[in-house]
Amino acid sequence: MRVLIVGASGTIGQAVAKQLDERHDIIRAGRKGPDVSVDITSVDSIRHMYEQIGPIDAVVSTAGSAHFAPLTELTPELNEIAVENKLKGQINLVLLGMQNVNDNGSFTLTTGILMDDPIPQGSSSAMANGGIKAFVKSAAIELPRGIRINSVSPNVLKESLHKYGDFFPGYEAVSAERVALAYQKSVEGAQTGQTYEVY
Amino acid sequence: MRVLIVGASGTIGQAVAKQLDERHDIIRAGRKGPDVSVDITSVDSIRHMYEQIGPIDAVVSTAGSAHFAPLTELTPELNEIAVENKLKGQINLVLLGMQNVNDNGSFTLTTGILMDDPIPQGSSSAMANGGIKAFVKSAAIELPRGIRINSVSPNVLKESLHKYGDFFPGYEAVSAERVALAYQKSVEGAQTGQTYEVY
Ligand SMILES: NC(=O)c1ccc[n+]([C@@H]2O[C@H](COP(=O)([O-])OP(=O)(O)OC[C@H]3O[C@@H](n4cnc5c(N)ncnc54)[C@H](OP(=O)(O)O)[C@@H]3O)[C@@H](O)[C@H]2O)c1
Ligand SMILES: NC(=O)c1ccc[n+]([C@@H]2O[C@H](COP(=O)([O-])OP(=O)(O)OC[C@H]3O[C@@H](n4cnc5c(N)ncnc54)[C@H](OP(=O)(O)O)[C@@H]3O)[C@@H](O)[C@H]2O)c1
Repeated sequence: MRVLIVGASGTIGQAVAKQLDERHDIIRAGRKGPDVSVDITSVDSIRHMYEQIGPIDAVVSTAGSAHFAPLTELTPELNEIAVENKLKGQINLVLLGMQNVNDNGSFTLTTGILMDDPIPQGSSSAMANGGIKAFVKSAAIELPRGIRINSVSPNVLKESLHKYGDFFPGYEAVSAERVALAYQKSVEGAQTGQTYEVY
Repeated sequence: MRVLIVGASGTIGQAVAKQLDERHDIIRAGRKGPDVSVDITSVDSIRHMYEQIGPIDAVVSTAGSAHFAPLTELTPELNEIAVENKLKGQINLVLLGMQNVNDNGSFTLTTGILMDDPIPQGSSSAMANGGIKAFVKSAAIELPRGIRINSVSPNVLKESLHKYGDFFPGYEAVSAERVALAYQKSVEGAQTGQTYEVY
């Protein structure tokens, strides 16, 4: 299969690329490429990426940031980061990419444990996660030509503990390798409308 | 209690106002008032409303629209309606209203069954619902001064079947009166972080 990974250079993206690399033809995307450049906060940039790459079998998104701040300091403007990036960015990869995906292809988006098991400072990220999860469940019943859609909701990654560990006291960190399996299940399996919780 | 209802003139808002009216002092808000005018898609308008009304004990939002369209016709621009309105509009009522709410006060937002039990054309609405549900769960652990937050997720209302009935084949419509009880539970009860499903 031809698999587009948006966010391929990231902690999760690299693990997914490694997991899928042997059996598939991977196109690595992100703001800095390397194979194709895209900024998911821009509709034009997403359109341009899809024009460049042509038909594909699977789109995997492991991109999408959110701002972490105490709720009392979360302004509408700071909340906008998650809205533009993790929420709308990923949804627009679907809305604008549907026509590029071959029959029986798939989309796999990324959410995260904060929607189910919240932490202080995580409300904006939780919002984006919950929005993606519900969109995936709903879009699954309407996608044409056998195209499937799922999302993966990781716990904090062991590989990210040096960055985010202090935010997640008592959370049982998971390996990037284990998280990557859920993306493989989505891409190579037959299920749709699911959120795979890797908790 | 002084209770602000944003969306008070709507199908759900009227029922909530009726349910709370005997025991509380109700301030009715919407784009067309009647007590105070607000457009929840505008940060300035929300700020102005809170300045006008002063301290309150409860904020209830029964406002928030979304565009219904087949997924293949849902553009980023059409999806923006739910993002601006039902999602960000309601979240900004919380972010900008926290300081106006008295100790041990509450916020009650509105989601809907489409996040759990999807219908064709409902992906954008589902997205907004899921985003609000997760935000509520997360914000609940951080709100200061004992302030609580919940959301109500109604099935399609009997009173709305003449408008939306064709979208909901086989859904067991609920009365506005029954839905209003969930808002009362949120306002007068002690729970937080909940989504009350009236299905
Ligand atoms: N790491 C964790 O512990 C963890 C746990 C649960 C959920 N998640 C979620 O998983 C996702 C990825 O996390 P991660 O830790 O792998 O992130 P990361 O290491 O920071 O990588 C982010 C990736 O996305 C790309 N990217 C960032 N902004 C972009 C944009 N606007 N347009 C296109 N590409 C963009 C980056 O490449 P460029 O810089 O080249 O654009 C990079 O490849 C996030 O949504 C995160 O919330 C992570
Ligand atoms: N009705 C149902 O069957 C049902 C079922 C599940 C969920 N829901 C959800 O419940 C919510 C309310 O539904 P409803 O049927 O009661 O709606 P509705 O009858 O159309 O009433 C909407 C209310 O919100 C106000 N409003 C609309 N846009 C606004 C804005 N930008 N700023 C401030 N106020 C605004 C309207 O007053 P003005 O025109 O004066 O602004 C009106 O009071 C919606 O989010 C809907 O998705 C409804």
